[in-house]
Amino acid sequence: MTNSKKDIIAKLKKIGEQLEKTIKENDNPEITMPVRTLTNAYFDEKDKLIRLGDKRQSRTFFNVGQSRKFMQTVLIAAQIKELLEQDKPSISTRQLYYILKHTIEGLKENTFEDQAESDPVIEDLEVAADSLREELGLEPTPKGVFCGPITYKDVRTGDEINCRKMGTAGAAIPANVEPTAMEFQKSEAKFVLVVEKFAVWNILNQMKFWDKHKCILLTGKGQGERSARRLVSRLNKELKLPVYVFCDFDPYGYYIYSVYKQGSINLAHFSERAGCPDAKYIGLKYDDIEKYKIPKTNWIKMNDQDMKRLKEIQNYDWFKKKEWQKEIEKVKKWGWKVESDSLVSLGIEFMGEKYLPRVIKEADFLD
Amino acid sequence: MTNSKKDIIAKLKKIGEQLEKTIKENDNPEITMPVRTLTNAYFDEKDKLIRLGDKRQSRTFFNVGQSRKFMQTVLIAAQIKELLEQDKPSISTRQLYYILKHTIEGLKENTFEDQAESDPVIEDLEVAADSLREELGLEPTPKGVFCGPITYKDVRTGDEINCRKMGTAGAAIPANVEPTAMEFQKSEAKFVLVVEKFAVWNILNQMKFWDKHKCILLTGKGQGERSARRLVSRLNKELKLPVYVFCDFDPYGYYIYSVYKQGSINLAHFSERAGCPDAKYIGLKYDDIEKYKIPKTNWIKMNDQDMKRLKEIQNYDWFKKKEWQKEIEKVKKWGWKVESDSLVSLGIEFMGEKYLPRVIKEADFLD
Repeated sequence: MTNSKKDIIAKLKKIGEQLEKTIKENDNPEITMPVRTLTNAYFDEKDKLIRLGDKRQSRTFFNVGQSRKFMQTVLIAAQIKELLEQDKPSISTRQLYYILKHTIEGLKENTFEDQAESDPVIEDLEVAADSLREELGLEPTPKGVFCGPITYKDVRTGDEINCRKMGTAGAAIPANVEPTAMEFQKSEAKFVLVVEKFAVWNILNQMKFWDKHKCILLTGKGQGERSARRLVSRLNKELKLPVYVFCDFDPYGYYIYSVYKQGSINLAHFSERAGCPDAKYIGLKYDDIEKYKIPKTNWIKMNDQDMKRLKEIQNYDWFKKKEWQKEIEKVKKWGWKVESDSLVSLGIEFMGEKYLPRVIKEADFLD
Repeated sequence: MTNSKKDIIAKLKKIGEQLEKTIKENDNPEITMPVRTLTNAYFDEKDKLIRLGDKRQSRTFFNVGQSRKFMQTVLIAAQIKELLEQDKPSISTRQLYYILKHTIEGLKENTFEDQAESDPVIEDLEVAADSLREELGLEPTPKGVFCGPITYKDVRTGDEINCRKMGTAGAAIPANVEPTAMEFQKSEAKFVLVVEKFAVWNILNQMKFWDKHKCILLTGKGQGERSARRLVSRLNKELKLPVYVFCDFDPYGYYIYSVYKQGSINLAHFSERAGCPDAKYIGLKYDDIEKYKIPKTNWIKMNDQDMKRLKEIQNYDWFKKKEWQKEIEKVKKWGWKVESDSLVSLGIEFMGEKYLPRVIKEADFLD
């Protein structure tokens, strides 16, 4: 679901009114919300997403162990509501911490000692209001760029960004890609190609791969952060575009792919809205090494840490599918890894002219 | 100076012809180039830039200690020339390494073992051809965003990017901002405001600070990388725009400012073209703490490492000016630091409505 500013204000107000009521009744003020610990996160086999479970926690005022956190929750909720009502610019979670940090009158205690205290409370409020922090007016630092046959409207500025005309730089992924901030307009895109590495994206963009193949070409520059993940998810769900993820051929590449697809355990409440369950992994794959005779000078021996990470990946619930287990077994026996960058050794245009068009056309991917 | 593709090809060809001549004369093939070690970098007091000195080195083929590096230099030069002649997309330095890495025929030796071997040779060629790697067709991963009253033309795609219409995302800084790739067009900008933190940039962009004050608003998202530095330098030199740098009030903020201004020792050959000697540091400054009554809850105690870094900064030649020495002495005695983000505690619009307009108008900066 998507929340407007008005929705969020109403939700926060409701939490406050509930508290007010309890106080007037001389009862113990209490806020309840879903538990966000790892034990309450699970892989939903049916929807193929990492989700938050049903466990709920309550935070009460008359509980010495909870009263500090209770006070912080109320402080943050009130501040967020005020900023939204005043239509202030969105800020960062660190800036919210600075706004609220102060010494409590009459005491020597500070409201917050550092950001590690305020961040979890913000996440609590996200789930309590069934919302994303971007909707609360809190924006992360985005990292990626994208281009392709799509135009979007920046709701706040009214600008129309034509991603076919963004030059070699591409369009910067906005900090806030929620529908309330970013409206998709005219699109001729047929799929989304997510590439891990900027250097790979840069070649494909210069080749106008996105124009020839009518796709949205996006890179998160390594691990995709919040806005890259959420943008890919929206393109998938709202425009019904298939999503292909092209990564390094190593455990870290697998993980990057899986975060775009299923989300991550530690941000389980975000995964539901940022996941992309039908995303496909398009390489490299073990058989490609032989098929394309990737030269041995491009191979990098896996070290103990790589191997350990590979085994962890193999044990994740969302890699339990037969095809993945088979692939990982082959790679474990082989013991090498190959970076996506290295494909240039077969020709700079190899990726864009041969490899990617073939695997996409032949659906030669892992799911 | 700026090199066209043709210029670079001609320069590399000349190096090759020189070698060919020596070989035909049965002489020892030799390439000479400026020394890039720290001992050959210095701060030029007059031009206020970090520069490479006059020392030159030669690399000869019939020298057991130099023959491997000689071979690598020739390999890289030949490959770069070929890619430029064929008008191939620009690639990354890592990709160039992968293209050239192979086992030498008849030997068990590889041309390169890892990228740490090829990168210094690329830098050698940059200085040998009095060029930047971007001109050699090698592009870094850019990081920053900018916006403001300027349009630029992406030479390779022909797109015109109007930085007044880039929404809340801003324009992505291109990987290659050389005049051969990025042409400045219509501009009403009166100055450049560089901010260290994206979160600060994000607020100022939402406030349309750049529109009200007719400035180019740019963030390198932390330490400015190659393209951010070079872009700021071009805006300063070619459009004659004053440059103001707004950082965290700590030794790392000072350093970020100084890299935009004078460049850095380890990329001395780049500093000449990426530096911006008349950039001003606009805060925070020691006196602002009292002047604006920055609450103590925003102060962060400097630890030993911060203090050590501050003393190193104080000893750099380019911080020897009286006003800087005085400032650093005050900060050393005080012993705290303040992040630029934290200014929101005085109001979210404080920076954009009060602090920045005043310091710029009153020229209340450090130089």
